[in-house]
Amino acid sequence: MTATGTLRVVPLGGVGEIGKNMIALCYEGDILIIDAGLAFPEEEMLGIDVVIPDITFLKEGSGKVVGVVLTHGHEDHIGALPYLLHDLDAPVFGTPLTLGLAEAKVREKGESGSVDFRPVRPGQRVEIGCFQVEFFRVNHAVPDTVGLAIHSPAGIVVHSGDFKFDQTPVDGQVTDYHKLAELGRSEVLLLLSDSTNAERPGYTPSERVVGETLYEIMRTKRGRILVASFASNVHRIQQVLDAACSLGRKVCVVGRSMQDTVAIAMQLGYLHAPPDLIVSVEEACRLPAAQCVVLCTGSQGEPLSALARMSVGEHRAISLAPGDVVIIAATPVPGNEKLVHRTIDNLFRRGAEVIYGPESGVHVSGHGSREELKMMINLVRPRYFIPIHGEYRHLVHHAALAREVGLGEGQVLFGENGTVFAFSQGHGRIAGRVPSGQVLVDGLGVGDVGSVVLRDRHQLARDGILVAVLAARASTGELVAGPDLISRGFVYMRQSEELLTEAARAVLEVLKREELDLRDWSAVKSVVREVLGRFVYERTRRRPMILPIIVEV
Amino acid sequence: MTATGTLRVVPLGGVGEIGKNMIALCYEGDILIIDAGLAFPEEEMLGIDVVIPDITFLKEGSGKVVGVVLTHGHEDHIGALPYLLHDLDAPVFGTPLTLGLAEAKVREKGESGSVDFRPVRPGQRVEIGCFQVEFFRVNHAVPDTVGLAIHSPAGIVVHSGDFKFDQTPVDGQVTDYHKLAELGRSEVLLLLSDSTNAERPGYTPSERVVGETLYEIMRTKRGRILVASFASNVHRIQQVLDAACSLGRKVCVVGRSMQDTVAIAMQLGYLHAPPDLIVSVEEACRLPAAQCVVLCTGSQGEPLSALARMSVGEHRAISLAPGDVVIIAATPVPGNEKLVHRTIDNLFRRGAEVIYGPESGVHVSGHGSREELKMMINLVRPRYFIPIHGEYRHLVHHAALAREVGLGEGQVLFGENGTVFAFSQGHGRIAGRVPSGQVLVDGLGVGDVGSVVLRDRHQLARDGILVAVLAARASTGELVAGPDLISRGFVYMRQSEELLTEAARAVLEVLKREELDLRDWSAVKSVVREVLGRFVYERTRRRPMILPIIVEV
Repeated sequence: MTATGTLRVVPLGGVGEIGKNMIALCYEGDILIIDAGLAFPEEEMLGIDVVIPDITFLKEGSGKVVGVVLTHGHEDHIGALPYLLHDLDAPVFGTPLTLGLAEAKVREKGESGSVDFRPVRPGQRVEIGCFQVEFFRVNHAVPDTVGLAIHSPAGIVVHSGDFKFDQTPVDGQVTDYHKLAELGRSEVLLLLSDSTNAERPGYTPSERVVGETLYEIMRTKRGRILVASFASNVHRIQQVLDAACSLGRKVCVVGRSMQDTVAIAMQLGYLHAPPDLIVSVEEACRLPAAQCVVLCTGSQGEPLSALARMSVGEHRAISLAPGDVVIIAATPVPGNEKLVHRTIDNLFRRGAEVIYGPESGVHVSGHGSREELKMMINLVRPRYFIPIHGEYRHLVHHAALAREVGLGEGQVLFGENGTVFAFSQGHGRIAGRVPSGQVLVDGLGVGDVGSVVLRDRHQLARDGILVAVLAARASTGELVAGPDLISRGFVYMRQSEELLTEAARAVLEVLKREELDLRDWSAVKSVVREVLGRFVYERTRRRPMILPIIVEV
Repeated sequence: MTATGTLRVVPLGGVGEIGKNMIALCYEGDILIIDAGLAFPEEEMLGIDVVIPDITFLKEGSGKVVGVVLTHGHEDHIGALPYLLHDLDAPVFGTPLTLGLAEAKVREKGESGSVDFRPVRPGQRVEIGCFQVEFFRVNHAVPDTVGLAIHSPAGIVVHSGDFKFDQTPVDGQVTDYHKLAELGRSEVLLLLSDSTNAERPGYTPSERVVGETLYEIMRTKRGRILVASFASNVHRIQQVLDAACSLGRKVCVVGRSMQDTVAIAMQLGYLHAPPDLIVSVEEACRLPAAQCVVLCTGSQGEPLSALARMSVGEHRAISLAPGDVVIIAATPVPGNEKLVHRTIDNLFRRGAEVIYGPESGVHVSGHGSREELKMMINLVRPRYFIPIHGEYRHLVHHAALAREVGLGEGQVLFGENGTVFAFSQGHGRIAGRVPSGQVLVDGLGVGDVGSVVLRDRHQLARDGILVAVLAARASTGELVAGPDLISRGFVYMRQSEELLTEAARAVLEVLKREELDLRDWSAVKSVVREVLGRFVYERTRRRPMILPIIVEV
């Protein structure tokens, strides 16, 4: 059954999470890419918009990319597609909703309609280069999510996708247990499985639980209901629509990403609503509170989102008042806790009732918990297992679970982005590393902001800048004007004239004493940096960036 | 019993939390200050070290500060003391450990030994101006924490301090229920109570639970044990010492704040250990792993802490290895989640086992949960209730709890920092606001970094700076040299020569075309800003700060 070649599996890119944004499968010159996602910048990546995987390795001629397969339509799985397609040309495979969301991303970035999108249905099998890829349905926080069974000449690789086992999914489409069982009965070489919730015991509750809570809240409260949720959580949006509909409330959709997703999902038939259920914001505002539901963005406290604007009374259409009930149907993504808390505080300040938090029942995770992760391994019964989709500690926990369900030490492989896992003749091992990591995107610049620029931004952020300008006579090297000191972000200049005057005097004295020729730029700059740096540190205990500039006239 | 004057209660300062860092009680010219704490800067307060309460109101002659009373030795209750004492002169009252920790803070800031510290014991009653202040014991994450019963001419004010009801505290000293009951039998005008855990159902477990878990881990693991905890959690440190001692392990203490606190607590008799239990790091490193415990800082993932250094292999003395067991005996303070996660990931990368998280039993909160908050109100039975110590949402929840246990709508008062609560003739109401809020400390500067400097830091952090220098002939207004463009934190200059050359050319063209006299600084600067800003935005989609500088020669 297995050929003689070597299959290489390489997780790429990402911030913290391993194999989340992209994985490459390579076999004899054919490269299959699974997902093309972006990550959001870490706190220290000042000014960076997004982070995409480094694909140097793909471009360096180790093979030809035969296709890109998308497992689902979340930003961290499709968001880097425009950048990837800018650099290479390959067909993109995915389910209709995933492709619909991916297409919107590509269009947003101005990459033209020349992309070769190839829709597939769960259950379908397509040939991509030397790979046969089967798409099987799994449950997740966005509809139309799939896992993959990739039949390679070296054996079968199963990729779980982002998954949970929801026994009562909103769309009635359970995970394709039968396909997983069938794969488990044949011989699976390798399972790559989602580690996101490897720290969480038990089973993740069904999305339907949220629907029941939302219904109960809408039924018992007399006020206007606002629901903030991830725009991509189409099932949850469906449950809001269903509850509103059955209780005689109308729904308005607020916030650009929410409106876009609702439009795409409606158009592709993933969201269903009677024609008069959804109304405009203006109409909604004219309705009695008890007949109104607002579905909006802002569940992560994003400062420009609809909900954050409402919370500070700055939304153009919706003004909150006591009696309003705001449901935060999401948990904060790590790093967003303070923004979410601030929004909640501000909502309370407006007199709204706010329903949020783990005990409220208005959110469940889209990822399987520990028992589901074990079940996935037991169903698939792979020869090798690589935990993916998680930060390092999640992979450690997931690897421990794999050993708990009976996998031997040598069967669990473990690496980071850039690690090459090689499989040949049915045997797997770690075979070195390839250039990997993250490319920082800032505005139109992709990868041009590196460590020097970031280090400068850090210093500027902390203590600002102090510019010292000196004009020198080109013919003699004498000082003609200056030093003029200008600061930004260091001290408030209007209140610090004295400090800056004294600092300039200190520079002047040293220049005179040392009798420096101002044409010797490097010597002068280093003296200015040292004198000014010491002077202001002594006086303020701050270390602004010192930027000496010499103009020759 | 009540006099005719008006008692005013004013929460001051803080970031987010209300009445946490400082509360002023004013009665006819006498001002009593409860706590003098600092807050840590919010993410957007770039470069700020700490945030202290604005005490303009105290300095503006509305009365004389007759004393400062400290409830316990945490940073957010004592950290602003050096700044406060710099501005005003008053005796400072507190229990011995609290004063020991406060004195260290004052010494650290170089404020001399002239502070009038007055130690009190729980149960003691002291006269401070027109107030009689009784100190009563409560349980919290630092020993020697007290609540206050303040007998004012207008009635009794009870301040809960930071508290929980621990039935089996490590030092055997339970909260003074009898004093609370006695107060409840007399007539309490006002209760101010800790809202930190108002979102948390049930009761907070006893600190002793953590001791049992720590003991079990040390007993069953063969490796070296590292425990990271808040330095001030002396009870937890005691439990580490006790467990180590009874299992034949030695303990070394690593990290400056941990060493300092252990020294102070030992000296004052709050921490007990047989003479040979604590050893130096060097000695510890020579011991077999099974006999070694390392007590260290870094439970919040602080990048310079002992644990963070160890996690990346950069600690001078301790190098981690497989077999080591690291216990993170704390939960992340909101905002620190990502730092803590990163440290845990790195510890796993070194091969250590890491024990952390809510299910691990290695941390309990120092604040009472909802049932304890209700019990406090039921014990004290105040006429008025003000929730304090919490962000706005916590106060909302705490106020709801007060109503649940029977307080009427008018009995629950509710405000923010700066709100004046006035009580006279047994009646309470909100009586306006005073200047309040936060003072930002950056290096030696207290309050000099305001919105202008912060706004500049934000722009610099996001997109850096582009300086344009022009030299002008003073006599004619002609351009003599430049424009020279220098950037920092915007683009990497070495890779962007072309961009900057073109940008300079664009500026030059406009200056020529508009025939500007360079002595007209404001016109020239505004043209340069506009032309450069537009040029670089079009080319990079970034908005660096544009800083035009004209030198006249």
